[in-house]
Amino acid sequence: MPKISQKGIQMPESPIRKLVPFSEAAKKRGIKIYPLNIGQPDIKTPAVALNAVKNNSLEILAYARSEGSEAYREKLTQYYSRNNIHVSAADIIVTTGGSEALSFTLGSITDAGDEVIIPEPFYANYNGFSVANNTKVVPIVSSIDTGFALPAIEEFEKLITPKTKAILICNPGNPTGYLYSKEEIEKLKILVLKHDLFLIADEVYREFVYDGNTHNSIMSLNGLDQHAIMIDSVSKRYSMCGARIGCVISKNTAFIQTVLKFAQARLSSPTYALIASEAALETPQSYFDEVITEYVARRDILISELNKIPNLKVSTPKGAFYCIVELPVADADDFAQWMLEKFEDNNETIMVAPASGFYSTPNAGKNQIRIAYVLNQKSLIRSVQLLNLALTQYNG
Amino acid sequence: MPKISQKGIQMPESPIRKLVPFSEAAKKRGIKIYPLNIGQPDIKTPAVALNAVKNNSLEILAYARSEGSEAYREKLTQYYSRNNIHVSAADIIVTTGGSEALSFTLGSITDAGDEVIIPEPFYANYNGFSVANNTKVVPIVSSIDTGFALPAIEEFEKLITPKTKAILICNPGNPTGYLYSKEEIEKLKILVLKHDLFLIADEVYREFVYDGNTHNSIMSLNGLDQHAIMIDSVSKRYSMCGARIGCVISKNTAFIQTVLKFAQARLSSPTYALIASEAALETPQSYFDEVITEYVARRDILISELNKIPNLKVSTPKGAFYCIVELPVADADDFAQWMLEKFEDNNETIMVAPASGFYSTPNAGKNQIRIAYVLNQKSLIRSVQLLNLALTQYNG
Repeated sequence: MPKISQKGIQMPESPIRKLVPFSEAAKKRGIKIYPLNIGQPDIKTPAVALNAVKNNSLEILAYARSEGSEAYREKLTQYYSRNNIHVSAADIIVTTGGSEALSFTLGSITDAGDEVIIPEPFYANYNGFSVANNTKVVPIVSSIDTGFALPAIEEFEKLITPKTKAILICNPGNPTGYLYSKEEIEKLKILVLKHDLFLIADEVYREFVYDGNTHNSIMSLNGLDQHAIMIDSVSKRYSMCGARIGCVISKNTAFIQTVLKFAQARLSSPTYALIASEAALETPQSYFDEVITEYVARRDILISELNKIPNLKVSTPKGAFYCIVELPVADADDFAQWMLEKFEDNNETIMVAPASGFYSTPNAGKNQIRIAYVLNQKSLIRSVQLLNLALTQYNG
Repeated sequence: MPKISQKGIQMPESPIRKLVPFSEAAKKRGIKIYPLNIGQPDIKTPAVALNAVKNNSLEILAYARSEGSEAYREKLTQYYSRNNIHVSAADIIVTTGGSEALSFTLGSITDAGDEVIIPEPFYANYNGFSVANNTKVVPIVSSIDTGFALPAIEEFEKLITPKTKAILICNPGNPTGYLYSKEEIEKLKILVLKHDLFLIADEVYREFVYDGNTHNSIMSLNGLDQHAIMIDSVSKRYSMCGARIGCVISKNTAFIQTVLKFAQARLSSPTYALIASEAALETPQSYFDEVITEYVARRDILISELNKIPNLKVSTPKGAFYCIVELPVADADDFAQWMLEKFEDNNETIMVAPASGFYSTPNAGKNQIRIAYVLNQKSLIRSVQLLNLALTQYNG
């Protein structure tokens, strides 16, 4: 029998999706499951985006331009300008989700065995894109006790080798909810300039910033034009994860021209989703105001409820809609699966993402889970109640 | 300044799209261009698919399942069954275009430096996906003089090394229009079983088979379950290239489980396009009958007109909607660009794809172009007239 590649064997299972067979089995047994595992918001997509697709008059569902239409990229520059990010349409390549944006980026700047330093825990699929691109992830640990603040720059410097090509951050952070300060971003700037590395920032949660804080984009830093690469996506901003539209932005023309070749090979991003994404740029500010108010309320209720559980640790997210929770269990993978297979209260249980998949250091995060607070407040309260009951029973 | 990767440098430009800047410049000068470069049919998408999207009632444009919904994959098995391909939903992973299906396949079965043997000329983007996956393409030349028939099996055997993981064919062929016979497919089966290789077949043009011939899928061969991998796409079948929906099919469960990990990392295929693709399965046979009749008429008029041009060689396609044309020029890249930059007749010119990008052997196909006969008959007649005038002027 012909063999699977080592790469294929090393591809990680998604910690967010790997428990799906167990949740489907539970559903078949009549169990209601609160899905806290996946960042799929229950917030409605803006009507302006949905209607643009419903009212489309296409007779031929044709390819789009590989880099995205001039019209869409021009409109994107206006959106970015309103967010203090000043770029031109030529700096943008539209991609099939932020996923593809990161994958094209790794392909464009790393060869087999080249290294990218990433503060961990990090978005789990960074592992997958790295394996797929033969890129080596070099993790630098951040701690729940500092709320997952940026590790000391000296710790980064210890990890830099001739194979290091970039530092990758997610800001605000998935899965940590941490928001990097202006000072932290400036420190990273000095570091990448000193070592001539790319600085990649996944900024897909830009709008989801709480408590009066400001988001600091790496694209707003002076003197970083040749080094800064931004990853973006419409998925969370407009609650349209199923569109699969994102983009990669950089003022480094050699980089953008290289990404374009990857984009040409896959022909184009999906045309209907491009229609929705272009229309979504007309979403009124009131939509975001409502959404942010709702997420703050959800965060507050979630954190306050979680803090009532004994021997549990959680840091308050400043952005995005995730938090890492440290549990009084030895193996959160086992516990998460157990909640789907063996536990129920009044025919209900919860599904969470074991955090180990958000680390690349072996055995790190074994007692942690990621919770996405994408459900309404009532569901969140019930979910934490279920978590508490499950912990008592599991540890009892 | 931080550097682009060797992989990024090696990524090929698309021969199909690289002349776009010249065609856009020509358009700005008021020139009408007949686009024969790209397989973007002018055929209308089935109304049943377009209407399904127009009439959708989604309020949240959510992620789809990474492998595609059970419902869609079940319906796909019925479509395949009607085409004498008997598979189950579990054998199918839905992908974002045939592009992604091939990319996931290469990632799942090749490590850096592993080899895949492909008869050339082949679909240009196979080069791009191979570079992106660190896979080495080993070309085996097929000739315009045999209509691009399968090269002798002994020639394949000469190229097999311990690094060879698969043989990849496109059937019917883009860019050749060649349709492999049952005997040729059987020969490949014996070869891959003997050497324990995967046999990958890109069968996206399955419906486009002319002159009463039959398409022979590798999935219909007995004894090849562990070795056969099929790439498919809705793009050409339903004239919905902009959907970006395809799939990869195999009965090799280790392979499918590996592809699933790649699929999970990128979360899901685009949701609107999945709605269109599922609905498209209801397209009546009369749609295909009309389309095939039209393509046969186009092919006949194109080939007959081309054959009137002196010193030009073309083989009659048996399927798909492309042909390779050998021209009386030394450098078809230069000639194709010249037609956009310097040539016009009555303010009209044509855009073709230089064939060199469809070869991986250096300097092969330098005097060839690919023509996609995706325009109506009148436009095709005028296009060949323009080609003839351009050749006379270019060589004069």
